Amino acid sequence: MIRYGCDYNPEQWDAATIEEDVRLMAEAGVDLVTLGVFAWAELEPRPGEYTFTWLDDLLDRLGDAGIDVDLATATASTPAWLGDVDDELGSVDRWGRRRAGGARGHHCPTSEAYQVASLRLTSVLAERYARDPRVVMWHSGNEYGGPESCRCDRCGRAFVAWLRRRYGDLDALNAAWGTAFWSLRLSRWEHVHPPRATSDLHNPAHVLDWDRFRSDLLRAQFRAERDLIKAVNPDAPVMTNFMGLFPDLDYWAWARDEDLVTDDTYPDPADPRGAQDNALHLDLMRSLGEGKPFLVLEQAVGAVQWRDVNTPKRPGQYRLWSWQAVARGAQGVCQFQWRASVRGAETFHSAMVGHAGATGPRWQEVVRLGGELAALDVGADERVDADVAILLDWHSQWARRAAHTPDDDAPDAELRRWHAAFFELGIPTDFVSVDSDLSGYRLLVLPSHFLVSQATAERITAYVEQGGHVVGTYLTGVVDDTQGVHAGGYPGPLSELFGVRVLEHWPLPVQAPPPVPAAARISTAVGAPQAGRVVSWQWGELEYARFVERTELLAADGNDAALALAAFVDGDLAGSPAVVTRPRGAGRATYVALSLAEEALLTVAGALAADAGAHPTVPGLPPGIEAVRRGDRLYLLNHGDAARTVALAGLTPADADASDVLVGPRDVRVVELAPR
Amino acid sequence: MIRYGCDYNPEQWDAATIEEDVRLMAEAGVDLVTLGVFAWAELEPRPGEYTFTWLDDLLDRLGDAGIDVDLATATASTPAWLGDVDDELGSVDRWGRRRAGGARGHHCPTSEAYQVASLRLTSVLAERYARDPRVVMWHSGNEYGGPESCRCDRCGRAFVAWLRRRYGDLDALNAAWGTAFWSLRLSRWEHVHPPRATSDLHNPAHVLDWDRFRSDLLRAQFRAERDLIKAVNPDAPVMTNFMGLFPDLDYWAWARDEDLVTDDTYPDPADPRGAQDNALHLDLMRSLGEGKPFLVLEQAVGAVQWRDVNTPKRPGQYRLWSWQAVARGAQGVCQFQWRASVRGAETFHSAMVGHAGATGPRWQEVVRLGGELAALDVGADERVDADVAILLDWHSQWARRAAHTPDDDAPDAELRRWHAAFFELGIPTDFVSVDSDLSGYRLLVLPSHFLVSQATAERITAYVEQGGHVVGTYLTGVVDDTQGVHAGGYPGPLSELFGVRVLEHWPLPVQAPPPVPAAARISTAVGAPQAGRVVSWQWGELEYARFVERTELLAADGNDAALALAAFVDGDLAGSPAVVTRPRGAGRATYVALSLAEEALLTVAGALAADAGAHPTVPGLPPGIEAVRRGDRLYLLNHGDAARTVALAGLTPADADASDVLVGPRDVRVVELAPR
Amino acid sequence: MIRYGCDYNPEQWDAATIEEDVRLMAEAGVDLVTLGVFAWAELEPRPGEYTFTWLDDLLDRLGDAGIDVDLATATASTPAWLGDVDDELGSVDRWGRRRAGGARGHHCPTSEAYQVASLRLTSVLAERYARDPRVVMWHSGNEYGGPESCRCDRCGRAFVAWLRRRYGDLDALNAAWGTAFWSLRLSRWEHVHPPRATSDLHNPAHVLDWDRFRSDLLRAQFRAERDLIKAVNPDAPVMTNFMGLFPDLDYWAWARDEDLVTDDTYPDPADPRGAQDNALHLDLMRSLGEGKPFLVLEQAVGAVQWRDVNTPKRPGQYRLWSWQAVARGAQGVCQFQWRASVRGAETFHSAMVGHAGATGPRWQEVVRLGGELAALDVGADERVDADVAILLDWHSQWARRAAHTPDDDAPDAELRRWHAAFFELGIPTDFVSVDSDLSGYRLLVLPSHFLVSQATAERITAYVEQGGHVVGTYLTGVVDDTQGVHAGGYPGPLSELFGVRVLEHWPLPVQAPPPVPAAARISTAVGAPQAGRVVSWQWGELEYARFVERTELLAADGNDAALALAAFVDGDLAGSPAVVTRPRGAGRATYVALSLAEEALLTVAGALAADAGAHPTVPGLPPGIEAVRRGDRLYLLNHGDAARTVALAGLTPADADASDVLVGPRDVRVVELAPR
Repeated sequence: MIRYGCDYNPEQWDAATIEEDVRLMAEAGVDLVTLGVFAWAELEPRPGEYTFTWLDDLLDRLGDAGIDVDLATATASTPAWLGDVDDELGSVDRWGRRRAGGARGHHCPTSEAYQVASLRLTSVLAERYARDPRVVMWHSGNEYGGPESCRCDRCGRAFVAWLRRRYGDLDALNAAWGTAFWSLRLSRWEHVHPPRATSDLHNPAHVLDWDRFRSDLLRAQFRAERDLIKAVNPDAPVMTNFMGLFPDLDYWAWARDEDLVTDDTYPDPADPRGAQDNALHLDLMRSLGEGKPFLVLEQAVGAVQWRDVNTPKRPGQYRLWSWQAVARGAQGVCQFQWRASVRGAETFHSAMVGHAGATGPRWQEVVRLGGELAALDVGADERVDADVAILLDWHSQWARRAAHTPDDDAPDAELRRWHAAFFELGIPTDFVSVDSDLSGYRLLVLPSHFLVSQATAERITAYVEQGGHVVGTYLTGVVDDTQGVHAGGYPGPLSELFGVRVLEHWPLPVQAPPPVPAAARISTAVGAPQAGRVVSWQWGELEYARFVERTELLAADGNDAALALAAFVDGDLAGSPAVVTRPRGAGRATYVALSLAEEALLTVAGALAADAGAHPTVPGLPPGIEAVRRGDRLYLLNHGDAARTVALAGLTPADADASDVLVGPRDVRVVELAPR
Repeated sequence: MIRYGCDYNPEQWDAATIEEDVRLMAEAGVDLVTLGVFAWAELEPRPGEYTFTWLDDLLDRLGDAGIDVDLATATASTPAWLGDVDDELGSVDRWGRRRAGGARGHHCPTSEAYQVASLRLTSVLAERYARDPRVVMWHSGNEYGGPESCRCDRCGRAFVAWLRRRYGDLDALNAAWGTAFWSLRLSRWEHVHPPRATSDLHNPAHVLDWDRFRSDLLRAQFRAERDLIKAVNPDAPVMTNFMGLFPDLDYWAWARDEDLVTDDTYPDPADPRGAQDNALHLDLMRSLGEGKPFLVLEQAVGAVQWRDVNTPKRPGQYRLWSWQAVARGAQGVCQFQWRASVRGAETFHSAMVGHAGATGPRWQEVVRLGGELAALDVGADERVDADVAILLDWHSQWARRAAHTPDDDAPDAELRRWHAAFFELGIPTDFVSVDSDLSGYRLLVLPSHFLVSQATAERITAYVEQGGHVVGTYLTGVVDDTQGVHAGGYPGPLSELFGVRVLEHWPLPVQAPPPVPAAARISTAVGAPQAGRVVSWQWGELEYARFVERTELLAADGNDAALALAAFVDGDLAGSPAVVTRPRGAGRATYVALSLAEEALLTVAGALAADAGAHPTVPGLPPGIEAVRRGDRLYLLNHGDAARTVALAGLTPADADASDVLVGPRDVRVVELAPR
Repeated sequence: MIRYGCDYNPEQWDAATIEEDVRLMAEAGVDLVTLGVFAWAELEPRPGEYTFTWLDDLLDRLGDAGIDVDLATATASTPAWLGDVDDELGSVDRWGRRRAGGARGHHCPTSEAYQVASLRLTSVLAERYARDPRVVMWHSGNEYGGPESCRCDRCGRAFVAWLRRRYGDLDALNAAWGTAFWSLRLSRWEHVHPPRATSDLHNPAHVLDWDRFRSDLLRAQFRAERDLIKAVNPDAPVMTNFMGLFPDLDYWAWARDEDLVTDDTYPDPADPRGAQDNALHLDLMRSLGEGKPFLVLEQAVGAVQWRDVNTPKRPGQYRLWSWQAVARGAQGVCQFQWRASVRGAETFHSAMVGHAGATGPRWQEVVRLGGELAALDVGADERVDADVAILLDWHSQWARRAAHTPDDDAPDAELRRWHAAFFELGIPTDFVSVDSDLSGYRLLVLPSHFLVSQATAERITAYVEQGGHVVGTYLTGVVDDTQGVHAGGYPGPLSELFGVRVLEHWPLPVQAPPPVPAAARISTAVGAPQAGRVVSWQWGELEYARFVERTELLAADGNDAALALAAFVDGDLAGSPAVVTRPRGAGRATYVALSLAEEALLTVAGALAADAGAHPTVPGLPPGIEAVRRGDRLYLLNHGDAARTVALAGLTPADADASDVLVGPRDVRVVELAPR
């Protein structure tokens, strides 16, 4: 069963519209509605005074139409009266400026007034609805972590409490943070503050711990709400909606606290890589759930309203990307929101029913998809199997973000490039955490995995010894768990495994050097830094970009010697190994000491995957075609503008004649395969 | 009589310089001098202590030289001592940060200290000079609205008072602002604040009302000063200087409170469209005055000093653009300022007398123009007649600016494009407000007129029924007077008139898609969104940019059926009407559902104007020539670098032999026509 | 003797590492170590409690290894406990926002707590170490002026005290600041504040005096520390480290207060002009010291960590640029820092010992250079002689920065362009102040020297009368010492000398005009401003950029007539002189009324230098070669990628056979010359 649903904010609508809406929902095949996300002021118009009539009435109406409800705790957006209780309710930025109300989510998370009132509301809601059979799941808050971090003194005190639990005493904190440098030694706990605007570069360890603290702080709110619901009904599923690779929360930790994983996914339709961005969201959610069914809880039917230019989805693209979600493991696709607002900040965000009403091509697509999903019988046990795992660790990305690193690439950029390469190659990938079971994967990728602890290094080494293949790329294994550099050469505790020691990071100038004129002058005759060509016996010349490293092979004799698969043949780094591989136990470890250009990355990633035994689901796909196997179904998605015929080489369709499948532009075909 | 004048700030100069200045003014033909704009500290060096000797002396000197005075109330820039009276004098930004003194105009407009002191000064000045015959007009404040809006608590309380008058009770306010969404319901008036920095997008209705309030608040200061002057001399003309399409004040309302309209116009000489920008200023001022004479009160002789790069006017361009002002209806051209400062923030702003003194080509041009204007006999009753009106409404632009709209184009950008098209076509245009009398116009343009109230829709419909032609472009008629979307399809209450319903806004990606490489990959094979070609039976292929809309024709039978003049023939919007026209009563309404590229806009605007009976003043003009008829004179202005001969086809020169007129580069020729 | 050294921050390291470090320093040839720059918290862990054991121990170890010490006063970065003493310790930005701790240098310089504690620490250190023979020099603070200026009320009061000393009474201040304009008259000293965020453009004279005040304020801290050291040992050399053309401090005044000049130089290796940037640093430091030996106190061995992209130095470039320092007059080259941090904000700043340890090509280069410098016998009396002087005055640059000038070019941009031209031409240059002795120079350059006082004008005139050649470029001599424009035409008091009067500044549009389409329209037919071609009888057509001026020759008869060497031959400035020269006494003055493009600047600068008798050290150098004579040695530096042979035409090598010298890529050759 695949859910089809939407956010519904009935507080915006009159009775007649609501009545029409429920009727239209049934027409569109909607069977799951999220209620109450922004309804705090409606549910509790004055402190402690609750009004449930409208909600009861709506539950009845939806129930009569056979529509289930995902009920929100309504704590994401505070009512105006809460500011009367706490005049320091607004969150505070790095300059100490307090945010005003007038939008959503402006509260400081350590406001006692907020905590008391939000949990009181959650409790009242749970008492009333947690045993209601029409409420099939619970939705805590909304997009936790959205606005920038509050850095008020109150949050600072909570940070100190968190640090005391983590470090015990100040000496340990001073050591971990390296405060000996720049005279930053803390001699009282009161000296600890949130990272604020200051006069020079921040201490990165300070910032890293702040990021950890903040993820934990917000998670504590989630857990408190969850526990109040569970206290009434231990079987009630509770979750909150994720936002893909949102950089500020450790979703691995969050996912462990949830009953199911849900996601808000808004790729830019104007971005030719939108389908890959969507796939990344979906692969990530499937991985975060470690097998539990996940939902797309929010996506747009057409355009959003928060970009500078909000190009809508192309005709058919909403349906196509919804099918992509099903193919990659979703048990439902829901939209924000049911009916487009006519007032407020999200007025021009598209909806299932637009401003012109239930009419036109968009509405037809909405109804068509609803019908298709209702007819589809896909079980939660139908899985996507991946042989390739990409290591993802928010702590590593925070460490990279906090550090003043050699270049300014985004902490997740290399990870995104490797995911995109496997997507293009048609090879399924999972994401894994440093705690995940790696044994099922043939290839593990560490894309610029900046922070590698001793424990992680040991787990990866054990994985390789037992037959796994691992590939790590530049800027991997630079720091340890407290942001301290692994002295002795990167990648520190993985250096022996990869058989390589990195001597120097070597980011390249972004801009090409100016042309050298004929005139004989000193400065203009000076060549700009250039790392030279990288040539491999196997892959020929490899193009690279942004970043290289100077490395040296670790001395090793005999069968387990490290081998340079590619090296710089000229330029400033001539002779320096660029790609190094080394066998270990039953497996192999390969280090890629540079940022490969797009074509070269496809070449190398494809070769390493093949070497590890990880292959495309369908080889030789025509342009624009994505092929995903989930359970015993093959989903063929055509993202291009021309119809394409797909030859199912090496696969066994249930219908033996279905070896060639024609897929129309922006269309999908589902092929039943013989069971594995 | 055409005035020739300047700002004069004698507080900067010693007696000898002042004496020389008055002599030079006479030499240059100056007959109107603005005094006192920044003289508060000079007039009132300590609270309540006034010194008028210097002003009296200067009035005598100017009077002796036959030079009239425009006297400022001097309230635009506060003296330092006012900060001693009110330590919250400085205005406050959206983050709650108070601006320091040290420049001009930093005061909060609701400061009681400011209000008391500014009106006391105005009153004292009025008592002393409002009956003085040498003071021919009064100048309140200066460039009202210049610095960003103050958002302090005091202004917030004034905002509440304004809202109470507008809405009566909180329920009405909550309804109008749509606070049901995002839990923003206000339960006490104290919950209302100015729009401040917050955690997410603002409620647009909140921002729209704030913009309205601010225009009214500043206007109240103007009215209070005006009334004090009128109390002494009811016949004294009172005004303040406008700044063209300045986005923050509703100049229609302001103009109604003034005795005459004046403008500060500073087109960038480095912008090839500078002449059109100047024309827009002039057309707007003529329109705001609805027939009353207007003045260019400030322009630069050469360069300004507030751009990043301040290129001066080209030789002859100061004279040429001054003549352009006369041609388009000005009764005078004045400059900021007479003599270039040698100290202070405006030191490098050019002046009639530059740092090198009364010498060189600039001074020669200043003197030449003064002589020419003095010799010119143009009456205030000599008018520019326009058949085309462009609807301009600050409330609509505020609504667009406050809304989180599909794209980020400037609220007045489409209006500027249509004015530019008519300028290039040589067709005179007026601007009109939603309250203006439309009956005299053949064509009315609604350029992305975002906010359309029911009343405005009815007025426009009546205009068409009585024979008018109206053209509306994309993003017209989206919201009502309280920023609520017209449900049922845009352009809401104009939908029937235009015969079209807009189903979806469709802004286009700003950047071209990257080239698709040969390699067969998923993401790179995906075509970027494209709306396709627009073809018209009448105009051929129409190029467009930025924005399109998906539309459908409204069903209509018989003679008043809507007709698609152009439609998308391929791409994502294939089949969607792009330009739709429909007859109504004696007139016609045409909807342009896209942003036309420059050439296409000239084609369409020219065709629609011709169809409505609006024609160029002089057909077939050579490149670079602007032709404007005012009264019975034809002004031919050559903005180009080459001399051109203009054939006066279809016009009747008073001198029948003057059918071909040679105009030199950056020169002007005035041709007397036979009276109409 | 050439020093070779480094910053060392042992508080980061354990005993074993320190022991290894001292051993490796000896291996590398290090003989000077800077200690204690960031050690305040280590030296004084609690207020008034000092711990010197670690420092004593290190001094012993270093002394045993024959390594001298540069001891810091450790006052640049405050310990956390100082915030307990003064809760207004953090500096305040222009919006009144106080900076938090957590980095270095965040203190307000007028904090009494800071002043008391920093001087107490300096005093204690001086008592203990100022007579210690191992401490060969003292290092006050660190990179004074680094973070942005504090603008708190306390600093405001210090500013008032400074102004009272400068101006005596408010009338003088009001006159000097030109407060008559914009109603800014100050009627009480309390009205004076630091320049803060306000509503419009600042009064430039206010900002100029603030810049002067701030340089003096920070210098007072330096002098106080210096005097405490001198009180113990009058012979102890005291300095602080400069940062090249750092815009905020008047290094001429600072250098006079120091015993020696030292510099931190960090050219970007990714910038093809890095070598010229380094040369500018070195020429400046040599000039600031007026003959005293100077040190490069900080440079990077590889990369820094504070740029967006931190490309490391190319192989050999660290050694090459160090030799460049010796060639241009340095008595030592030191690096930041000895061993790369593993924690903290500077972790990824390269060091003499990198994260991988004392290994690899970098370490080999470090050791090689140490050996070479130890073998080099260059005395402090071996000088670089220059015939060309470039006038540099921080007050002039502050005046330009504070003024709202015609364009937004950096205040030192024209100076950098002229230095670069002479660098390319191989002609040695010094920098001089307005107080320097000019008599030894053949050519004096005033590159857009904005502020010229009467006294400076007289000194320059006397210099020319006695035979000097002076060249001034556009935007020279615009304002006087209090930012008042020289009325009567720029360059004011130099106008007679140059024989030219500037009538108008004429910055050019940055962007090329859009192409003019075929269509005959007004705006597109309008040409953009263009100044036209500049042609000279001597140099042919001269290309220019950014800025021109309209000028006129001053009438002058006979032998001392001003002569236009080049003039605009067409365009908007046709006929206006572009380069004007005039003889005066035994010398000559030339005014360049435009910003010359690179090639044209080489032509003009080369011709003017030759005319004045200033010639390249080695004529006809091959591409990429820099040649510098210091004492009787010629240093040949090859910045290019190919080996080059240099012919020593016109020079007399001590070894007569050494007339052709081969220099490898990124290598250096030193040629002994016959004594002069």
